[in-house]
Order: sequence, then C-alpha cells, then structure tokens
Amino acid sequence: VTAGATALVALDWGTSSARAYRLGHGGQILGRREAPLGIRNLSGSYPAALGALLGDWIDAKAPRLACGMIGSRQGWVEAPYVDCPAPLSALAGALARADGGALSIVPGVACRDADGVPDVMRGEETQVAGALATDAERTLAILPGTHSKWVVAERGTIRAFATFMTGEAYQVLREHSILGRMAEAESGAFDAGAFGRGVRRGAADGASGALLHRLFGARTLALTGDLAPKQVADYLSGLLLGAEIAAGREWAARQGGVPERALVVGEPALCDRYTAALAEAGFDAERGPNDAAAAGLWRIARAAGIVR
Amino acid sequence: VTAGATALVALDWGTSSARAYRLGHGGQILGRREAPLGIRNLSGSYPAALGALLGDWIDAKAPRLACGMIGSRQGWVEAPYVDCPAPLSALAGALARADGGALSIVPGVACRDADGVPDVMRGEETQVAGALATDAERTLAILPGTHSKWVVAERGTIRAFATFMTGEAYQVLREHSILGRMAEAESGAFDAGAFGRGVRRGAADGASGALLHRLFGARTLALTGDLAPKQVADYLSGLLLGAEIAAGREWAARQGGVPERALVVGEPALCDRYTAALAEAGFDAERGPNDAAAAGLWRIARAAGIVR
Repeated sequence: VTAGATALVALDWGTSSARAYRLGHGGQILGRREAPLGIRNLSGSYPAALGALLGDWIDAKAPRLACGMIGSRQGWVEAPYVDCPAPLSALAGALARADGGALSIVPGVACRDADGVPDVMRGEETQVAGALATDAERTLAILPGTHSKWVVAERGTIRAFATFMTGEAYQVLREHSILGRMAEAESGAFDAGAFGRGVRRGAADGASGALLHRLFGARTLALTGDLAPKQVADYLSGLLLGAEIAAGREWAARQGGVPERALVVGEPALCDRYTAALAEAGFDAERGPNDAAAAGLWRIARAAGIVR
Repeated sequence: VTAGATALVALDWGTSSARAYRLGHGGQILGRREAPLGIRNLSGSYPAALGALLGDWIDAKAPRLACGMIGSRQGWVEAPYVDCPAPLSALAGALARADGGALSIVPGVACRDADGVPDVMRGEETQVAGALATDAERTLAILPGTHSKWVVAERGTIRAFATFMTGEAYQVLREHSILGRMAEAESGAFDAGAFGRGVRRGAADGASGALLHRLFGARTLALTGDLAPKQVADYLSGLLLGAEIAAGREWAARQGGVPERALVVGEPALCDRYTAALAEAGFDAERGPNDAAAAGLWRIARAAGIVR
C-alpha cells in the first residue's frame, strides 16, 4: 500500500451534478472530479457517464461507492429506502449493486412524520454519516438546499428527519411570480439588512398559512418604497429561511427536544446564509465539515467491509 | 327615463381581463361585456381598449365608473390608495378621473398589519361594497383569487384586510416545481377526497414554515402511491387553501374577534372550492352575490353623486 494509492472511489451523484473523490487508505481525499452529469441531465448510458466522470480513475483497482439520486427509481439501480431509526450498519447492509457489482450504491432513508406522511432523503444520510462521528451525542444536522433536511442523529443513527421545500419555493417564486418581477436581477452583493428583516418576519409566530400573507408583504414593501428593488430577493430568501427555521425548531422540539448541538452541512455559500439566518432567529449553529459526502462514503464503505 | 335606459356604465378592469356592465336606473344589470383587455395585456392605448370593450355602449349618455388595476400606477390614471378604516364615502370621495373626466376610477385601499407591513387591494374594495349592505353587521368577506383577500367590514366600512398569495403560489408550484411534475394534467374532475385531505393537513397547527414541509409531502405521498398522480393537484390546492384558512382565521381573531357572518365573494367555481375548504376546516361561510363589482360600482356612484 503506497501513500498515494486509491482505496475507494467515492461518488456523490445527484439530480443535476455528479462528484467523484479518490480516497486514500486513511480515507483522506487524494483527488476530486465534478461534472454536470446528474441523473436528470444524462443523454447517454450510466456506464458512459461514469466513464466520463472518472476519466483515468476508471482504471483504479479500488471499489466504488456512490450515494444520492443515482440510487433512486429514476437512477441506475434502485437502492430501496431504509427506515428510521437508521444506524450506519443499516445503510452499509443495504447497498445496491450496479454495473455487475463494480459500483455499490448507498440506500436513501425514509420516515413518517407525526401525521403519518412519508418523508425521504437520498444523499443527505451519507453527508450526515460523514459530518457526525459515530460517538457523537444527540445532534441536529441542518442540510440546506432545494429540499432542505433537518435531521436528528444520535451516535451515528438517524433518528428522524423532515424536509422543507425552501430552496425550490424560493426559486419558483423568484423566477415565476410577481415577487420576481418586483426584484432587480441579483447583483451578487448580499444585503444582510433586508435578509435579516425577512428572517425575523418569516420566523415570527403565525399559523402555517401566514407565509402566504408574508410573501405578499415582499411586494407591498417594494411598492411603498420600504424595500429597494435590489433588496427584494434577499428579503424573500430571508422570509423563507426564517419560516423554515421556526418550523424546523418546532419539529426538532417534538423529536424529544431540540438537541444542544446544531450543525449546518452543505455547500459553503448556502451554509453561510443559513448560519446567518439561524443566528438572526436566535439559534446557535456550527458549520459542519466540507466534503461530508466523501467522509460518509468512507465510513459506510468501512462498515460494509468494502474497505478496511 | 325609460326602463332600458343606461344610468351607469360600470367597469371591473383588472390585470388580465376587463368586464363592462350596463346598469339601469335602479342599478339593475342590463348587459354585460368582457374582453381579455386587462392592463397587462394591452398593446394599444387605454382609450382604444375602452372603445373595444364597450363597442356601441361607447355612445351611451351615461357616466362611467371603473374599479381595479386600471387605477394602479401601471394603469390609465393612478387613484391613490385610501387608508383603512375606509367607509364607502371615502372611496366615493377619492375617485380619479381619466379621459378628460369621461371615466372615473375607484381608489384602492391600504392598511398595515400588526408588524407595520403594508397591504393593498384594488377592485376587492368595490366587490365588498357590492356584497355587503351598508347596514350589515360586522362581516368577514373572503375574496379568493391569485392574491386572496380576507376583509373585515362593518356597516359598509372596510376596517382591515389581509392578502394571501395562495392562488399565485399554487400556480407557480403547479407549473414550475417538482410537485407539478408529479401531477397528472388536470382532468377537470375535482377530487374532493384528495382536496379535503390537503385542507386538513394545510390547516393543522404548525409554525409558518410548516407549509414548506407539507408541500414536500405532496411529493412523497405520490412517491409511495398514497396519492395517485391525478390527485396531486387537488391535494396541493387543498394544502394551500387549508393553510390560508388557518392563518386567515387567526388574522380575523386578532381584528377584535372572528365575525359571526362570513361571506365568500368572487368567481363561482373558485368560491365553490373555498366554501368546500372552509367547511372541511370547520368554518361556516355563505356564498356572496354574483356580480358584486357591478353592485359595488353602483353604490359608490350613488355615494359620489354620479348617479341618483
């Protein structure tokens, strides 16, 4: 075993993009590759996409383990959901095999909320496995995104989780509603004041439909000049994040109490935005590690006996 | 004065469409015309659009009174908002004049909610004036639509109101989000079971961001087969209406108590849907009169001394 030898090719393969990591014998990252080859973007076959993503890594004499939408019904091979509570061993024990066994795929996780409505995740379970040590006390992991996940985990076991359609709601309102028409094109300059104002309003007490009223406020505040056109997008983003945080905290409280430790895990710029919103809403949260998916794939591969 | 003589040409002129009524000397409707000449659809001038809408009514020797977005900043002439509490006399006293005085326009109404965030309506104030007698006790009027309005009125005076972006949220989620992609094309057959299930879930207790979680449930219920693809759209509609109703009732309670009488006013098919949702949520509401805008324009014209 040489220092630069590949022990595992780890793949985080989602809806829009795919990322590959070459991991060494301690699980350390030796290389990273990324391509817009998410399962919704594929024109050719999965083996062809794998080849294009891996390049010369395709020849590495190492096992391959993937997580994410590649294991969904629309993916390469379906890896059926594992139910909560889901320990690392349950994920490792339910890998699906694609490409004649040349690629293993981590299953997603499912649960039902208090009303019996199902919830699902794919990929986030692996990020949680990477972000939290198996001996970590009860922790709340928040994974922002198109469909944000709030996850309560305890000693490596996913106890429960809830999805919030925050990112997608922002996107469709921004691109297709009257709120988007009032907003100036995003300049790239983040307006912390407008964002914070949105967070406070979004997180304020109110029934679930209060969000439908508060969204209209983004329009009227712009109409009366209380918000400048260039502030509307960040105000809207704040409103939605504030609403998610208020409901997420309420959800976590129902899971046997809000854990003392909260970790935000995911894409750095989005995590910054969430950390700011959480602070504005009076909720202390730390930033989780980067490349959590790679670390999670390593831990699951070890639990499955694929690597040592 | 002959029985069929025109006393007032009344116009309900909105964003997407325009409707004209020929009213007799008792305010009765003698004729109706409609065209897709809303202010967002106009290619030519306002006088040309008025001519196209009215046809041979253009020669009627009668005053003309309009309500709706035609009086907005993007309309023909701006009729600035009147603040709440807004009695009929305040609306009648603040008409704007267009076309050299040949057309009068009813102002919109503005208020601020408990957090100081402004809210506005244009057109709905006139429907409320038409639906409620000036001697009506404290009443809650619910006007469903792209931007639904909940209005508390008392003896012809609009005391307070709140807007919910329910219709627009439904539309953008249905057309542009993953929920729309899971839903079969609307067949026209209303699924009361899926709708009611959505209403109960939408109206259930929860913080404002609970809606963002419940929306995702429309996807997972479809994924697990708990909802058929053709049920997703009505379930989604129910979720949003239920959320609006829970928040609207909470809002009304803060306006000095929920009025004993609740009236649903607007487009008949949409009012049916709201009445069903209100009943599902345990909220008794009656259907208001049709052509409420025409009746309101008549009352405002009388209060302004334009007609007798």
